[in-house]
Amino acid sequence: MTLDLLDTPAAIIDVSRMQRNIASMQKRMDALGVKFRPHVKTSKCLNVVRAQLSAGARGITVSTLKEAENFFAAGITDILYAVSIAPSKLWRAAALRKRGCDLKITVDNASAATAIVEFARTQRDPLEVWIEIDTDGHRSGIKPEDDALLDIGRILQAGAVKVGGVMTHAGSSYELNTREALTALAEQERAGCVGAAQRLRSTGIACETVSIGSTPTALAATNLDGVTEVRAGVYAFFDLVMHNIGVCAIEDIALSVLTTVIGHQQDKGWVIVDAGWMAMSRDRGTSKQSHDFGYGLPCALDGTPLDGYMLIGANQEHGILARARPEHTADRGDVALRFPVGTRLRILPNHACATGAQFPQYHALELSGHLTEWGRFHGW
Amino acid sequence: MTLDLLDTPAAIIDVSRMQRNIASMQKRMDALGVKFRPHVKTSKCLNVVRAQLSAGARGITVSTLKEAENFFAAGITDILYAVSIAPSKLWRAAALRKRGCDLKITVDNASAATAIVEFARTQRDPLEVWIEIDTDGHRSGIKPEDDALLDIGRILQAGAVKVGGVMTHAGSSYELNTREALTALAEQERAGCVGAAQRLRSTGIACETVSIGSTPTALAATNLDGVTEVRAGVYAFFDLVMHNIGVCAIEDIALSVLTTVIGHQQDKGWVIVDAGWMAMSRDRGTSKQSHDFGYGLPCALDGTPLDGYMLIGANQEHGILARARPEHTADRGDVALRFPVGTRLRILPNHACATGAQFPQYHALELSGHLTEWGRFHGW
Repeated sequence: MTLDLLDTPAAIIDVSRMQRNIASMQKRMDALGVKFRPHVKTSKCLNVVRAQLSAGARGITVSTLKEAENFFAAGITDILYAVSIAPSKLWRAAALRKRGCDLKITVDNASAATAIVEFARTQRDPLEVWIEIDTDGHRSGIKPEDDALLDIGRILQAGAVKVGGVMTHAGSSYELNTREALTALAEQERAGCVGAAQRLRSTGIACETVSIGSTPTALAATNLDGVTEVRAGVYAFFDLVMHNIGVCAIEDIALSVLTTVIGHQQDKGWVIVDAGWMAMSRDRGTSKQSHDFGYGLPCALDGTPLDGYMLIGANQEHGILARARPEHTADRGDVALRFPVGTRLRILPNHACATGAQFPQYHALELSGHLTEWGRFHGW
Repeated sequence: MTLDLLDTPAAIIDVSRMQRNIASMQKRMDALGVKFRPHVKTSKCLNVVRAQLSAGARGITVSTLKEAENFFAAGITDILYAVSIAPSKLWRAAALRKRGCDLKITVDNASAATAIVEFARTQRDPLEVWIEIDTDGHRSGIKPEDDALLDIGRILQAGAVKVGGVMTHAGSSYELNTREALTALAEQERAGCVGAAQRLRSTGIACETVSIGSTPTALAATNLDGVTEVRAGVYAFFDLVMHNIGVCAIEDIALSVLTTVIGHQQDKGWVIVDAGWMAMSRDRGTSKQSHDFGYGLPCALDGTPLDGYMLIGANQEHGILARARPEHTADRGDVALRFPVGTRLRILPNHACATGAQFPQYHALELSGHLTEWGRFHGW
C-alpha cells in the first residue's frame, strides 16, 4: 500500500521522523542520567511503544487501565497508571497485578489512600502507590509543602501499602514558548517533586522513585538532580502545539492525516477535503498560541508544508483548506487548478494525542514509500 | 449492570429520552408530508438506527462509506452517502451496489461528475448520483442559481448516470438561536433546493428527490412544499449546542458521560473527575454561543443538572468541574464534602456526535435502571 492508493482520511506515521524523535529524547535522558518511562497514551500502539522500549525506555506510563491491560498482554510489565485512582477501579488494577503485572497506581488524596489501604488489607495485595505532586497548579496532585502529603504517606505506610515514589506532571508547560520559561518550569517541576520525596523520606517513608515530566520540560531541563525517571508522551510524534511551544521543528512532526480534495468553493478560495474534525479531532490547541494553525497545516504528499495555507474550518467529514490570511486572495480563483479534485495532501495536526485517537489504526510510512498498518485501540 | 457499578468514563444513552426525540421528529416530518432519512453519523449504532427506522424513517444518510458498509451488512439498503465523493472512493461505493445496496452518492463539481461518468461506463454500473446544493454558503455544494449545476446535470445525464435528486444541508443553522431566524433559514434551504431541482427538471433531468435538512431547520420548518425528504442526525440525542440554538430542552438530552470523582483542589473549588477530553471530546461548540458550558454540564446520577457548575477544563483523562462563575466561591472549601472521591456524575456534552465518537460502545439506560451495551464503530 502507498499514499497514492490508501483510503482517506488516514493517520500516517512518518517512521523515520518518529524514530529520530524517540532516539533524540532517549539520548537526552541518558545524558541527564535518568530512566525514561514514555507515556503511551499518545499512540496506544504497540509498534510505537516497542520502538520506544528498543531505544532504551524502561517501563511505560498509561492514562487508562485499558492501556495497562493491552500493553501487559503484549508482555510489558513495568507500568505506571498516572491518573489518581478511583477506588472502584482497584479491582481492575489488582486483577492485573495478580496476573504478574508490576502495576503502580497513583493517588493524591487521603480518601482514596484510605480506600486503597482497606482494599490492600482485605484483598491481601500490598499494591504499590505513587503519590501525585502538584508542582505547577495546573491540575491535580498535592503541593510539595502541603501537610496532606505526609498524611497520605502515613495512611499508606500504616496500612502496609508500599509508597513506591512521587510523580508530577508540569502540564502548564503547554502555555509557554521560550526556552528560559521552560527551563525554569522544568527546574520548578524537579525541585517540587524532589522536595516532596525528601519530606516523605524524612518521616521514614522510602519513596524510592521521583518521576517527573512533560514533553516540553523534559526537553528543556538542564539539571535533574534527585530525579530518578522522566515521563513524556507526545514527543514521539510531536505536533503543531509543540512546534509553537518551541520544542520541535515542523520537520519533526511524525503524524499527519492523509486527505483527498473533494471539491471547491472557488469564489471564497476554499478547497474542500475529506478530513474534517472526525479525522483531525476538535483540538484547537494552537488557537491561543503565537501561531494559530486552524485545524492543521496542510502539506504536499511528500511532507512539504504548503506555507500560507491552513485548515480554516472543519465539519464532521469536511475540512476547509484556504489561505491562512484572508487578504491573500490573489489565487482565490485558481484553487481548483492548484488543488484539483482527487489531489492528496497530508495535514499536520494541532495535537497528536487527540488526532491519533480518532483512528482505529495508523499507517506507518517507511522511507521506501511503503505503508504498513499499525493497530491502535481506544476506549477505557 | 447499573450506573453505580459501570466502569467510568462511559457513554450513557437515556433510552426514553432518545425514543421521545425520535418519535417527536418523525411525527413532525409526517405532519409536514415528507419522508425522513436520519443521518446515522451521530450514533454509528445499529440499536439507535433501528429505533429510528421503527419509528417510521425511510432509509438512512451516512457520512462515510464505512457507515454504509456497516449498516448495509445489518440489512439496511436505502443509503445516501452525503459527502461529495472522491473519485478514488467509487470502487468502494460500487462494491456495495454490486452486493445489492441501493447506495446513492453525491457530487458538487464537474470534475468528480466526469470521473463518475467514466467509472459508470467502464464498470457498467449506472450508479445513482444526487447533486449537492449550497443553500447557505457554509460549506460545500453548488449554488442553486449557478450554471455549474446544469453543467453537472448534463455531464451525468449524457453519461447515462441517474441524477436521482438534489440535496442540501443548511449547517449555518448552528449559528442561530431564535425561532424566527431558524424558520427563515429553513425556508431558504427549502426554496434553494427546490429551485435547483426545478432548474434541472427544466432541462429534462428527472431529479426525483429533493432532500434537505439539519436538526435545527428540520425542527423550525413550517412549509416543505416541493421537498420530498428531510435529513437530520443529532436530534436523536440532542446536546448543549442544540439547547443553545433553542431546539431542545436540557431534559431532552439523551447522551451523557458517566464519570467518577477522583480528587479535588479545594482551594480553587475544583473537583477532578475521570472524564477528560478523551471522553467528552475537544468539542467546544458552546464557546461562541449565548451560554458557554465549558466541556459539559454535570448532572447528578439521576440526570438532575447541577446548576451553576460546569466542566471548566479538560486534560486527556482529567476533567475539572467547578462553579461556572468564579465569583461564586462561597462553597470552594466544601467541594470535597459535596462531591467526595468516588461520587458518580453524568456530564451532558456540547456535541453528541463528537462525544459519542470517543467511545467504542454506548450503555443504554432503561427506566428500570438497567444498562445494556450498544456497540458503535469508528474510523473510515
